[in-house]
Amino acid sequence: MTNALSGVFAPVITPFKTDLSPDLSLFAKHAGWLMGQGAGLAIFGTNSEANSLSLGEKILLMDKLLEHGLDPARMLPGTGACALPDTVALTRHAVDSGCAGVLMLPPFFYKNVSDDGLFAYYAEVIERVASPDLRLYLYHIPAFSGVPIRLPLIERLIRHYPEIVVGIKDSSGDWDNLETMLKAFPGFTIFPASESLLSRALPLGAAGCISATANIQPAAIGRLLASWKAPQAGAMQAQVDAVRQVFQQYPMIAALKFATAHYADNQTWDMVRPPLTSLVAQQKSQLLAELDAIGFAMAGLRD
Amino acid sequence: MTNALSGVFAPVITPFKTDLSPDLSLFAKHAGWLMGQGAGLAIFGTNSEANSLSLGEKILLMDKLLEHGLDPARMLPGTGACALPDTVALTRHAVDSGCAGVLMLPPFFYKNVSDDGLFAYYAEVIERVASPDLRLYLYHIPAFSGVPIRLPLIERLIRHYPEIVVGIKDSSGDWDNLETMLKAFPGFTIFPASESLLSRALPLGAAGCISATANIQPAAIGRLLASWKAPQAGAMQAQVDAVRQVFQQYPMIAALKFATAHYADNQTWDMVRPPLTSLVAQQKSQLLAELDAIGFAMAGLRD
Repeated sequence: MTNALSGVFAPVITPFKTDLSPDLSLFAKHAGWLMGQGAGLAIFGTNSEANSLSLGEKILLMDKLLEHGLDPARMLPGTGACALPDTVALTRHAVDSGCAGVLMLPPFFYKNVSDDGLFAYYAEVIERVASPDLRLYLYHIPAFSGVPIRLPLIERLIRHYPEIVVGIKDSSGDWDNLETMLKAFPGFTIFPASESLLSRALPLGAAGCISATANIQPAAIGRLLASWKAPQAGAMQAQVDAVRQVFQQYPMIAALKFATAHYADNQTWDMVRPPLTSLVAQQKSQLLAELDAIGFAMAGLRD
Repeated sequence: MTNALSGVFAPVITPFKTDLSPDLSLFAKHAGWLMGQGAGLAIFGTNSEANSLSLGEKILLMDKLLEHGLDPARMLPGTGACALPDTVALTRHAVDSGCAGVLMLPPFFYKNVSDDGLFAYYAEVIERVASPDLRLYLYHIPAFSGVPIRLPLIERLIRHYPEIVVGIKDSSGDWDNLETMLKAFPGFTIFPASESLLSRALPLGAAGCISATANIQPAAIGRLLASWKAPQAGAMQAQVDAVRQVFQQYPMIAALKFATAHYADNQTWDMVRPPLTSLVAQQKSQLLAELDAIGFAMAGLRD
C-alpha cells in the first residue's frame, strides 16, 4: 500500500513578523485558506523559505497547523536538510504527526557527490526513522541544490524501499527529464513543479503539481486537474499559464508574498528573511498592473 | 583594534564513530595535535564536514575543545548556516567561548541573491550577536555555496562594520580574485585556501592560509610561513606543493581522513558522513604509494 498523493500542492509561503520570527497564527490561517481552495500543503518547500528556517521553527510551524485542526493526510512537508540528524528529526516528527509524506531535498552543500553517497544518505534516514508509515518523495531541484537526483538513483531507491520511496517532485524545468521519469517509473508518484506542464504531463501519468503559484491560484489549478480531459481544458491551461507567466518575471518568493499581502490587505506577508529581499516599489506596481491586465485577483483572503 | 589572525589554520577534520556520531574525545585529541604543530583551528569548515553536522553537534564539539584546555584565541569556527537563527546561535556561542573569530559561509541554498540581501543577512547576524568581541571572516567558496562574495559587498561590509568584518577566506581557487582583493583591501585579513598560493600571496599581504591539507602537513606549512623571504623558501614551497598535489587527485575529505587513519593507526578516522563516501581500496593503496614516493608521512599521531 502506498496511499499515493495527488492533486495540487502549495509550497506554503511562510509569514514573518517585523522581527523576522514566523507568524504562526497567520501561517495556520493561510494554510487553512489553501486547503479550503483544494490545495494540499507542501509546507517547508523552496518557496516557503524553508532553508531560512531553523529546525525548531519548522517544528513549531508544523505543530501549529495540527493544533489548528488541519488534516495531516494532505500535508507533504519538506524535511531534507544538509545534516543527517536534522533530516531525521524533522522526518520523524512529520511521520509521528501523521503527515501523508515528506518531500526530501538531498543534502545540498557538498557537490559532485556520488549516487552511492546519496543512496547511503537516504538509506540512513529511512533506517533511522524506522517507520512503516514513512512515505518519502524525492526532490530534484538542481538549480538550487546543485545535487541532481538522477534516474539510476531513483531506480535503486525504489528497488530497495518500494513501500517508502514512492514519488518525486521534478523542479528541473526540463521537460525531457520529466517525460523520461514518467515513462520509466509508471507506478511512481511524480509531480512537476509547474501547473504549466499539466496538460502535457497528466496524460503520461503525472500525479498533479507542486507549484509556487499554487499559493496564488490553487482553485484554478484544481479545476484544470479535474477537467484536463474536457473540451475546456485548453482554455483553463491558458488561464493558469497567464498568471504563472506574470509571476515568473519577478523574484518568485517576494512576488508571491507581495501579491498575498496585497489581496489579503495584510503587510505582514510582504516580509522575507534575508538573504531574500522584498520587491521594490516599481516592481510592486508593475506586478499589480500586469495582474489587473489579465483580470486576476485572489479572493477570500481578508479578515 | 582588530587582533588580526595570521598563520596556518586547519579546517579540522571531524571523526565519526561507527554509528556516525562525532567522536568528541578523538576530535579534541587531534585538535591538540594540530595546535602542537602550530596550526590554528578552523573547526567546522568545509573539510570538517560542518554542513553534515547539526547545530547541537557543533556546540558539543566546540565545548569539548575548550574543556580539553585548547586556546580559543587560536580558534576560527565556521558558523554560517542557511538559516539566520542557526548562524546567530553558533556565532554567539563562539563569541561567548572566546573564539578569536568566526568564518561565516553565506546562506547557501537560495541562488542569485542580491548583494542587498546578503548585506542584510550579515547585518542581521551582527546586530543580533551584538558583541564588540565578534570578529567576522567572510567565506568565499562559490563552487560549494553557489553564492559568491563579491568585492562591492566586501567593501560595503567593511565600511559599515570596520571593527567586526575583518577578513575573508578565498576558496575560489582564482588567483586573479585573490590578488584583486589583496590589493583592494590592504588592512583586511585575507587567507587563501591553499598553501600552494603562499609564495605569491604573502608578498601581497596575505595573512597565511586556511587549507584542507593543513590537516596533513601543518608544521611544513608553518615553516614556509616563517621563512618565505629566506633562500630556502622555494624548496619549502615545492615540498608542500608536492603533498598538496597528491591529495588533490582524490576526493579531498575522504583522502584527508584515510591518511589520518593510516598514520594514526586508528580506523575511526576512515569514516565520513553520507553523502560523502570513503576512498575505495584501490584509491587507498594508490594514495599511500604516492605519499611514500615523495617521502611523506605524518608523525606523532599514534597513542
